[in-house]
Amino acid sequence: MTEPNRMTATEAARAIAAGRLTATDLMEACLARAAAREPAVRAFIHLDPAQARRNAAKARPGPLTGIPVAVKDVLDTGDMPTGYGSPIWAGHRPRGDSAAVAAAKAAGGVIIGKTVTTEFATRSPGATSNPHNAAHTPGGSSSGSAAAVADFMAPIAFGTQTAGSIVRPAAYCGVVGFKPTYGTFHRGGMKVCSESLDTIGIMARSVADCALAMGAMTGRDYQDPEAKRDRAPRLLLSLGQAPGDATAETVALLHRAADAARAAGAEVVEAPLPDALLQAAELHPYMMNMETRQGLAWEYAEARAQISAVLLDRLDWASGFPPAKLGEARRAAMAARAAFLDWTAGFDAVLTPSAPGEAPEGLAYTGDATFNLLWTLLYGPNVTIPVGTGPKGLPMGVQLVGRIAEDPALLATARWVQAALG
Amino acid sequence: MTEPNRMTATEAARAIAAGRLTATDLMEACLARAAAREPAVRAFIHLDPAQARRNAAKARPGPLTGIPVAVKDVLDTGDMPTGYGSPIWAGHRPRGDSAAVAAAKAAGGVIIGKTVTTEFATRSPGATSNPHNAAHTPGGSSSGSAAAVADFMAPIAFGTQTAGSIVRPAAYCGVVGFKPTYGTFHRGGMKVCSESLDTIGIMARSVADCALAMGAMTGRDYQDPEAKRDRAPRLLLSLGQAPGDATAETVALLHRAADAARAAGAEVVEAPLPDALLQAAELHPYMMNMETRQGLAWEYAEARAQISAVLLDRLDWASGFPPAKLGEARRAAMAARAAFLDWTAGFDAVLTPSAPGEAPEGLAYTGDATFNLLWTLLYGPNVTIPVGTGPKGLPMGVQLVGRIAEDPALLATARWVQAALG
Repeated sequence: MTEPNRMTATEAARAIAAGRLTATDLMEACLARAAAREPAVRAFIHLDPAQARRNAAKARPGPLTGIPVAVKDVLDTGDMPTGYGSPIWAGHRPRGDSAAVAAAKAAGGVIIGKTVTTEFATRSPGATSNPHNAAHTPGGSSSGSAAAVADFMAPIAFGTQTAGSIVRPAAYCGVVGFKPTYGTFHRGGMKVCSESLDTIGIMARSVADCALAMGAMTGRDYQDPEAKRDRAPRLLLSLGQAPGDATAETVALLHRAADAARAAGAEVVEAPLPDALLQAAELHPYMMNMETRQGLAWEYAEARAQISAVLLDRLDWASGFPPAKLGEARRAAMAARAAFLDWTAGFDAVLTPSAPGEAPEGLAYTGDATFNLLWTLLYGPNVTIPVGTGPKGLPMGVQLVGRIAEDPALLATARWVQAALG
Repeated sequence: MTEPNRMTATEAARAIAAGRLTATDLMEACLARAAAREPAVRAFIHLDPAQARRNAAKARPGPLTGIPVAVKDVLDTGDMPTGYGSPIWAGHRPRGDSAAVAAAKAAGGVIIGKTVTTEFATRSPGATSNPHNAAHTPGGSSSGSAAAVADFMAPIAFGTQTAGSIVRPAAYCGVVGFKPTYGTFHRGGMKVCSESLDTIGIMARSVADCALAMGAMTGRDYQDPEAKRDRAPRLLLSLGQAPGDATAETVALLHRAADAARAAGAEVVEAPLPDALLQAAELHPYMMNMETRQGLAWEYAEARAQISAVLLDRLDWASGFPPAKLGEARRAAMAARAAFLDWTAGFDAVLTPSAPGEAPEGLAYTGDATFNLLWTLLYGPNVTIPVGTGPKGLPMGVQLVGRIAEDPALLATARWVQAALG
């Protein structure tokens, strides 16, 4: 039998249901892995083995019974500290769980601990390193969640995305990252910065695990998480609004994925981005930073000295625009959402890069969200699947983007593409 | 000179700027009024006079310098307890201020205290009574905010609205209630129940005060809050999706307002609601309660015994529908927002009742949101203005509804209608 901590959530849930594995044994395996690897990886900001064991022992019955879930530290937990990646909130103990964490527990999930987030899920990084090479960033802002899942410390983790904070670290760490349709998870008890963009999602080591977790926590029907599509998909191929930002290996990888899909029967059509999408992509930074400036109004007024220089610079920048600019960005985003429906009519998904390339060297910079921010703003589901490694031996991924509310279909398409890639 | 606590915010801000009034004297007058009236009205759940005085003494310079602001107790305050109207959160002390409270302070506003909210801004009431007749409800969920402003304990208060929680209590208490365009205030640090509907707004004793407060706190341009429209407006007249729920006096009041507007030069056209609006109104309860069920997932799982029977009944009801029903409601709402633009093309606002009638007798029931929920769901601004009293001598209001982002224009129209009514 596979070591329990290396099982996917789907495998482990089956083993637990069949009595071949206990929640406690699964948790012990994850904790043993963390004990061995955390000195190098530092995925967790809070990990109390005794508490995790207690949680495993009292897992509720449900589709995720006994499955360890790591929680990005922008989501409140009533029994664990929640610091939002900021010294301003160090040692903060919420009274209750965020809605997403409560949903995970209600489905039987077991919270193993809190994972490192960049400062308020923006740019300034925590201590986590890439489990594939400790000299490289794991990406961000969901740094610890990506690393914990990639390094077999937990099969499932919560991430959040405002620009590229799920898809990019998942790609850098070689796991599946799924940002569902905006508004799928309730954000109660999350430190929301950009109300129009922040979206809670899932990281896992298989597409099926994302579907399992999403269905279990939201009650939505994700069909059989392991079933194959009954027909080859029609895909739009796009390098997004800044094709020049893709490295040569990223362009090559995208075309390899397209060729593999075509070889397996898919139709793949390269198409330029509509103007409405280009315009919306340009306005994303205004929406994100102006709303974050509003959301961090208390921190900005009362704890300025504890805000990082890089974030303070963004907040100051955002303060320089009139609220009408935010209105303009919101209108452009609405127009782009409508244009996306026209652009993708008759197609199952957009096939596009997950990131500019492999994870950058160093821990000071979590990488560029250029290949994610537009798709986040369009509100539909985005998923990255791991596809081999790049020239430095680090993981790379390709991304599939779907229409609002077509989340199960997008995951089915992702499984199809993954199978075509072999 | 008017007693300071009876001044509008606009008058008080001018007096303070001119050196004729100090923030401290204004606060003292509000506190004296509260001391005299709170035993009967019970608008505040937290009011510490010494703390309010300290806050007044350190008011920041800005357009609201020294103006007392009462805060509905669903908004976090770092220096005052925040209980969300629920025993589950009794004694809760947030570490920081909500974004809205921080915005009020940054504009110079002085937080006087926290006002009574119904349980999580839903139905189960607090102890507040109507300042015009203590045997009647002040309405809800922003019960204490409406009562405090109406009873001259504070010139400005924050409310929040999901169905009719600003407009209805404002109408019942005889003040102006303004729900701005959805998303105008950031909801960081608010106990959000329905993410698609919850909107933070303002209560005051004049339309100009709402414009002053909104401009000061959001940085948006509300033009001259006291300026008149340069031309008579074109108004749509509607009794909404349930005209039969209006009492005879409400129908009479609406027609009196329409006649007065016509006499002053306005065009007023009665028009049936488009089907898309009727359908969306029917789905509002699903959206509100299913999202609230998600948002209160932790309370539902861990503190069920401390949830009121009426709320538990709603949450159980909401648990009975598949997530697809929520998707249906969200799609219907989007379609209704588009249909509203067509329906109102060429008009300045919809003139419609604020509530079914006067405030109901008794404190157990805060009244019916039938005349509010559709307009909340459409995301544009809604404002109620007081228009005399009903058969029991209690205040009544009429409501004006505008298009998304046309908030300053709607307030200008409201001032015009108020002037026409004399």
